[in-house]
Amino acid sequence: MTPARERTEITDPDDPRIAEFRHIRERDLTGREGRFVAEGTVVLRMLAAAHGAGRGIRAEKILLLRNRAAGLADILSLFPADVPVYEAEAPVIDAIAGFHLHRGVLALGVRDAAPPLMELLRALPDDALVLAACGISNHDNIGAMFRNAAAFGASAVVLDETCCDPLYRKALRVSVGSVLTMPFAREGSILDMLGALAEAGFAIWALSPKGETEIRDIAPSPRLALVMGTEGEGLPPAVLSRFHTARIAQSPDLDSLNVGTASGIALYSAAMAKRIL
Amino acid sequence: MTPARERTEITDPDDPRIAEFRHIRERDLTGREGRFVAEGTVVLRMLAAAHGAGRGIRAEKILLLRNRAAGLADILSLFPADVPVYEAEAPVIDAIAGFHLHRGVLALGVRDAAPPLMELLRALPDDALVLAACGISNHDNIGAMFRNAAAFGASAVVLDETCCDPLYRKALRVSVGSVLTMPFAREGSILDMLGALAEAGFAIWALSPKGETEIRDIAPSPRLALVMGTEGEGLPPAVLSRFHTARIAQSPDLDSLNVGTASGIALYSAAMAKRIL
Repeated sequence: MTPARERTEITDPDDPRIAEFRHIRERDLTGREGRFVAEGTVVLRMLAAAHGAGRGIRAEKILLLRNRAAGLADILSLFPADVPVYEAEAPVIDAIAGFHLHRGVLALGVRDAAPPLMELLRALPDDALVLAACGISNHDNIGAMFRNAAAFGASAVVLDETCCDPLYRKALRVSVGSVLTMPFAREGSILDMLGALAEAGFAIWALSPKGETEIRDIAPSPRLALVMGTEGEGLPPAVLSRFHTARIAQSPDLDSLNVGTASGIALYSAAMAKRIL
Repeated sequence: MTPARERTEITDPDDPRIAEFRHIRERDLTGREGRFVAEGTVVLRMLAAAHGAGRGIRAEKILLLRNRAAGLADILSLFPADVPVYEAEAPVIDAIAGFHLHRGVLALGVRDAAPPLMELLRALPDDALVLAACGISNHDNIGAMFRNAAAFGASAVVLDETCCDPLYRKALRVSVGSVLTMPFAREGSILDMLGALAEAGFAIWALSPKGETEIRDIAPSPRLALVMGTEGEGLPPAVLSRFHTARIAQSPDLDSLNVGTASGIALYSAAMAKRIL
């Protein structure tokens, strides 16, 4: 039996101890000293797993709806004792967070600066699948890409500087917490990023509706990277002309697939080709 | 040169001519006499294509942000002259619709009662791919499933009575308007629905993480139906025990895939097996 975790009651929405949670819908903490907000029990559990696992991710504080706290004892026991747990009644939580939190589970975390891309790539195994992305600014899509990368056994996600930060609250939630456990880097231009992948021995496949090879027929390589662009413009011509290109066959009279779904199909195909799963 | 479409200016948010658009975020018109709200230029174009195409879908009225109207002349000309077009300045639009409409493009449509399932199935070609779903209540997921069904050449989508209405505003938007062009039915229990599909000659493949056959290896059949359940509970045991089952290989230590993404992978695999694309 896990001993019940000590919790501190918050009765004043303006209590400075939970100031970071105030109005989280209107602002976003990401980019401010690497802090991020985790929502919901699944993401809280992933945060517990990431905390202290050597990935540079730590939990700072937890805020719970009072009637959720008892049911979370197992997860709370995974956090070290110096991570404070606050609880509050529903009206106080609503006043703090600026909207009705259906899940009543919030945590504040901090991530050290992401590792430099070259360092990340060096640390990957000789046999690795990597998902790369260019220009993905939609939080749902970034979250979906991390969720899919985790589901299909990718070793890392690498983003160019024009992608949004995957630690945004909504991206983190849509990823079902995978952003906290999947190694990632976000830096530089797409061409510099792909150059670094090539130098590290990755076969690079850029996805495009006009790609040369159907995605389920791509050749397996020990190190293989899939590159996704935006739904509207796709990848820049300079990328498509320099690397292998792959397509996902689809009806010609439609907008392209959602990029999150396309990443799922591409990762599934690559994982099957590489016999990861 | 298309003659400019006549537009009527609205200056009073309480004008009865645009009453149906008021507070659309808080309420949902679907289920009230078959009415639905279409948002954005892409969905407006799909509504124009569906209007009068014999699918029982009609546009009733259009409401535009004034500075968007001129740029939409081409799409507006696709609607018959008896579909009124209203326009208003941004503060009026905001007051009408209850939130800031970034796209400034709204239409009200009406759909006749969906065709009975048996009638829908009889009208399908001898060679057909159908996406079936059980218990999908999330609007994003329903929308994603329609988008994927359209992208991979499915002939219809069939939903059991526990799925949400795909004409909900957000489902329609996420589907990029495919709900308006893809034949669908929504009625009865999942077992009745699958019984009707079997009777109509469909080979039925129920998706489950524990399915027998890897999805990319399923046998092609002239008439083939894929069945998706919810992310949490999955399909009922009575479905999994009576029909073929297929799995999408994935990392064992994770939640299952998002059901929208899973439908994309399953439809892609089936479309490739059936050489639809």
